[in-house]
Amino acid sequence: MRKPAFATSPHSLRNKLGRSFWCMVYVLTFYWTPRPFHAWRILILRLFGADVHRTARVYPKARIWHPGRLKMAEYSCLADDVDIYNVGGVELGAYALVSQYTYLCGATHDHEDVDFPLVPKPIVIHARAWVAADVYVAPGVTIGEGTVVGARSSVFGDLPAWQICIGTPAKPIKARVLGPDDY
Amino acid sequence: MRKPAFATSPHSLRNKLGRSFWCMVYVLTFYWTPRPFHAWRILILRLFGADVHRTARVYPKARIWHPGRLKMAEYSCLADDVDIYNVGGVELGAYALVSQYTYLCGATHDHEDVDFPLVPKPIVIHARAWVAADVYVAPGVTIGEGTVVGARSSVFGDLPAWQICIGTPAKPIKARVLGPDDY
Amino acid sequence: MRKPAFATSPHSLRNKLGRSFWCMVYVLTFYWTPRPFHAWRILILRLFGADVHRTARVYPKARIWHPGRLKMAEYSCLADDVDIYNVGGVELGAYALVSQYTYLCGATHDHEDVDFPLVPKPIVIHARAWVAADVYVAPGVTIGEGTVVGARSSVFGDLPAWQICIGTPAKPIKARVLGPDDY
Repeated sequence: MRKPAFATSPHSLRNKLGRSFWCMVYVLTFYWTPRPFHAWRILILRLFGADVHRTARVYPKARIWHPGRLKMAEYSCLADDVDIYNVGGVELGAYALVSQYTYLCGATHDHEDVDFPLVPKPIVIHARAWVAADVYVAPGVTIGEGTVVGARSSVFGDLPAWQICIGTPAKPIKARVLGPDDY
Repeated sequence: MRKPAFATSPHSLRNKLGRSFWCMVYVLTFYWTPRPFHAWRILILRLFGADVHRTARVYPKARIWHPGRLKMAEYSCLADDVDIYNVGGVELGAYALVSQYTYLCGATHDHEDVDFPLVPKPIVIHARAWVAADVYVAPGVTIGEGTVVGARSSVFGDLPAWQICIGTPAKPIKARVLGPDDY
Repeated sequence: MRKPAFATSPHSLRNKLGRSFWCMVYVLTFYWTPRPFHAWRILILRLFGADVHRTARVYPKARIWHPGRLKMAEYSCLADDVDIYNVGGVELGAYALVSQYTYLCGATHDHEDVDFPLVPKPIVIHARAWVAADVYVAPGVTIGEGTVVGARSSVFGDLPAWQICIGTPAKPIKARVLGPDDY
């Protein structure tokens, strides 16, 4: 039988070596560190190319596929056990919060192409949004400013600003009481 | 930009030091132990304040946020890879069973308060209930006696006794054939 | 109170010792290996009884309950963080792909029997099917040839061939554009 195209990594050698090195450094210097050591972890992420503000918080058990494709603004936060598969890039606005077990999935496969190529797509979570626990965010999704995504939801399309959204697929169910003028 | 209130831990120093110590002890004495060593793991949980019956079973890869807020009755059971985030306390009745990958999430944030405070809420699973694999249980939920929650469901509200419940949100679909008189 | 039947393992001593040994070997020789070392991991799986084709790929962080109940055809693939609970056996056809965080749950409990016995059921994923990320597959399910199951779906019943299926429970929403004649 023919070897399928998807059995060969679509990533460059440089990308693969860089990620291997990042995994080693993550195990040695990151995932076991005490929770308040945010400054140390941000230093390491920056050495690997992350564009992370010094006030951001990344908890030790957050997993990041490629620090060089991560952008985090002031006081944004990634909780423990979050998984950032940022093949197409992930960006968090100021004060944006991603809670435990949430998975930001930044790539899919084109299942209508016989070669099944990997298709990276960016994920953007705007300022003051809160993505609660165990949410799935699909490739290419943008979550609007101040929007709350309820725990265990699955987000397959863009969500507007300052809404409460829940379900699978996540949809706005009501406006958030707070708005940009409350801060 | 202003440092948000949610960037400061709401827990007391005593709580934080206690949990750090528990994490160390968990890694050193708990999570790698052979599966049948229930008595040993219950001893350790009790040293950290858990109110766990000697016949209860806690598998080695179950994660418990704070043993001092865990109560387990006779023959109740937590499977591997269960996560008990028991900020507001978690209580299991006799013979209650929680299966692998289920997440009991015992706290939320008040997203209509600009300070975004942590809001702990207790979770109670009554006797002979079975919460199957990869279920999400929201803060404040009570699951009635003998009730079965199907795999991969998400429980956002209280569930009555002796029912089969499935879905997101989990709802009763039929009465369980067994009842309290069958035991 | 009476000790319940479900507190005693239904597995034979031979099964339990074999799995304990497998867990040790997994930790020592498998889960930390570099991603391209597929030949090495397949060698180890075969030593434990797996019927895995030499062209199959099993990523290092895939978890397998019992290698002796795993069957993988040419170029089939298990991604990292997949969990194969193959009590009743799991079989993948040629080119079948199971993506990260997907859980193939190969056993349930009979909750209408007071003894709550474990009920193993086989899972079969036919050739060229793709089970995407964070999907739950229930005991006894068969997924048809070439079928795509969308990310975060939950599969509770058999799925036909060459369909796109999504949701909870996963249902066909349209035919896949590709079919057996395209390969």
